[in-house]
Amino acid sequence: MASSLKVAQFSGSSAAKVCKIALVGFGTVGSSVARLLSTRNGELPFQLTHVYNRDVARKKVDWVADDVLWTDEFEDLLNSDAEVVVELIGGLEPAYEWVKKALLAGKSVVTANKQLIAHHGTELLALARERDLHLGFGACVAGGVPVIAALQDGLSGDRLHKVRGILNGTCNYILTRVEQSGASFADALAEAQKAGYAESDPTDDIEGYDARAKLVILSRVGLSADVHPHEVGCRSISGVQQIDFEYAHQLGCTIRQISRAERHGGQLYASVEPALVPQTEPLARVAGSQNLLVSTGEFGGETVFAGFGAGGNPTAVAVVSDLLHIGRHKPRENNETAPARLKVSSDFETPHYVRFVIQDKPGIIAAIAGVLSHNGINIDSVLQKPGCSKAELPFVMTLETCSTAKLGQALTEIGKLDFHKSAPFRMPILR
Amino acid sequence: MASSLKVAQFSGSSAAKVCKIALVGFGTVGSSVARLLSTRNGELPFQLTHVYNRDVARKKVDWVADDVLWTDEFEDLLNSDAEVVVELIGGLEPAYEWVKKALLAGKSVVTANKQLIAHHGTELLALARERDLHLGFGACVAGGVPVIAALQDGLSGDRLHKVRGILNGTCNYILTRVEQSGASFADALAEAQKAGYAESDPTDDIEGYDARAKLVILSRVGLSADVHPHEVGCRSISGVQQIDFEYAHQLGCTIRQISRAERHGGQLYASVEPALVPQTEPLARVAGSQNLLVSTGEFGGETVFAGFGAGGNPTAVAVVSDLLHIGRHKPRENNETAPARLKVSSDFETPHYVRFVIQDKPGIIAAIAGVLSHNGINIDSVLQKPGCSKAELPFVMTLETCSTAKLGQALTEIGKLDFHKSAPFRMPILR
Repeated sequence: MASSLKVAQFSGSSAAKVCKIALVGFGTVGSSVARLLSTRNGELPFQLTHVYNRDVARKKVDWVADDVLWTDEFEDLLNSDAEVVVELIGGLEPAYEWVKKALLAGKSVVTANKQLIAHHGTELLALARERDLHLGFGACVAGGVPVIAALQDGLSGDRLHKVRGILNGTCNYILTRVEQSGASFADALAEAQKAGYAESDPTDDIEGYDARAKLVILSRVGLSADVHPHEVGCRSISGVQQIDFEYAHQLGCTIRQISRAERHGGQLYASVEPALVPQTEPLARVAGSQNLLVSTGEFGGETVFAGFGAGGNPTAVAVVSDLLHIGRHKPRENNETAPARLKVSSDFETPHYVRFVIQDKPGIIAAIAGVLSHNGINIDSVLQKPGCSKAELPFVMTLETCSTAKLGQALTEIGKLDFHKSAPFRMPILR
Repeated sequence: MASSLKVAQFSGSSAAKVCKIALVGFGTVGSSVARLLSTRNGELPFQLTHVYNRDVARKKVDWVADDVLWTDEFEDLLNSDAEVVVELIGGLEPAYEWVKKALLAGKSVVTANKQLIAHHGTELLALARERDLHLGFGACVAGGVPVIAALQDGLSGDRLHKVRGILNGTCNYILTRVEQSGASFADALAEAQKAGYAESDPTDDIEGYDARAKLVILSRVGLSADVHPHEVGCRSISGVQQIDFEYAHQLGCTIRQISRAERHGGQLYASVEPALVPQTEPLARVAGSQNLLVSTGEFGGETVFAGFGAGGNPTAVAVVSDLLHIGRHKPRENNETAPARLKVSSDFETPHYVRFVIQDKPGIIAAIAGVLSHNGINIDSVLQKPGCSKAELPFVMTLETCSTAKLGQALTEIGKLDFHKSAPFRMPILR
């Protein structure tokens, strides 16, 4: 079947063969891809031949070449002579079935669908490899920032053991707004929705599921770790309050949604959660909706990648770069070491920040310190902003490095004490 | 001859074919490559078969496999069954002849030799392409930071028009030391030499020739511009003094050796020189000997890459990543648009900083302002630190955007006035 592969060999000359492309989905990214292809027409060896969308008539635009076939039947693409299918509909179904069908029909696939690759990447990549086809997914993580290409290729010589990133622009935008304007979390979210940075249902962003899918893909590509999304612990950023930023600043830090994975032998530590980040770290300096990734390797040390992680145009750049990669490189059989199934834990050993909100009375610090001590956890500092009401008093403890799980147990115990006005809120402090 | 290509197809399985590697040069980078290959032995599908070095006996180490052939005859490598030659001797000769011979003998080449690729890249890449061989040069620019892979592959979908970088760690180290410790340029240079960051003859670093070779390579890969190194204007960082940092800070800036290239249609603007960089820019935050590159594309906007730009291990990562790329991808014929020969100019239109050192007397500002005005150049501000001697008084003018060449003319005219204690020193101010 591999012999049925007909991906054109590209050439810079005018007699170059062009590669026929079918686009599945004509939303923000799909129309940006079409726009990029038509703007760079003549420079790029591609011909857009098909556009699929549900109810396609309302999507039709006049700046796409006349000979493009617009259809709402995916089968039309499957039966066409398009050599690459670009999947941009998102979600697991029908994307999963369609990508599989495209590969089985001998077509290479490029996708921006992070959930698809996070959940089914291992299977789909194996299928593509078996059939000598490409499955490009550079657009799944960090949009226009070429982290997948960098980890897969430019840093492949290193033995990477850690990745840390800000992979969700919506969360970064919201946290930056809370930090800079003093807005409440709810107001910052509403503002992000109004500005088009957050969806009407922001669950996937806020709770970390979007970043988690990206982290799973990075773990596979960078750390050779085959992990399921549900194995990675997520904690919501919705618990972060303005007062946390005040304490964080006092500690020389800011607060960001951090996705991180560290490989230690056969174990992968991975989580997506709000964390305190020292102001001196590149991760603390990511503006607005941008993305940033820091990879750490045994030989090359830390490498930083930053830029626009979302939006039609940056994501279209990633899609078209994958298309060019297909044109330039023939896949080799068995060309990569298969990622290993690893044990996954979110139990990082790390210093912590814990914010309590209490009704003040004597003996509270002693009570909390007693439970922590009993659990073998050392207090590093106790911070209390002056001028707060005794009836609802926020204060912060920073804790020396300890197991996150052990701290969780201690906080469950502490949470049963009778002076809390709201549940204790913890975040790791990155080092 | 292309049919004689025998680069192994790699596989993750234990029955994998391995690719035979010959190392030319066993200095810092060469021994780091050998060390990386031997540390990752079993994970990587490579076998080191030959090490060439002049006077090889004194280089021999015991941690390299017994069956490696150590030789001081390059011909031994040419006549061997090594499939890839890794050239790490640096300099133009004999590297140029040897790389050509290796390609003519049907061997792919990986090199860390930036001068070789900057001067002869077009010819050598064409030769490799003709023969269906690889010529990997990711290690030539920014060491362990995979900027070549990113521009060539991950960002290829964009239409890049600008690259700006800190590409020479030695200069960045020296300027950082002058800035932070108040050391003189000469003392900071001596310190960098002592710490091993600068060579005993630091000309290539200080004058910008090292960074220029890298900029030429980036222009070719990122901006499709075929440029000769001697066409790119360089200005030394040796004119930068402690007082310039004081004024720069007052202007919200720092000073760095900046390599930049901008493509405007058929014209390339390119230079390597010290420049004022706003503190808010990623370029201002590069620590010590690290490297950083910002690429700007029409669709994806700015993307930032940063990390360790030199040293044995990071450079070895780039070399081994290129080796893996060879294993994973078959080159396709005519797979890239040939870069275009462009007109090159260093005459950026930009705001400027000019420091004068004068023997004070009335009418100096008027005289300078007269010449600038006569040349159509507008003054933005005049800065003078209090407390300096009237006999040797430094002061600074910042100028609105103007042609660098026109400013040069005006400064030649101004330099003829009789009050100078040293020649006026100018730097562009990045925006």
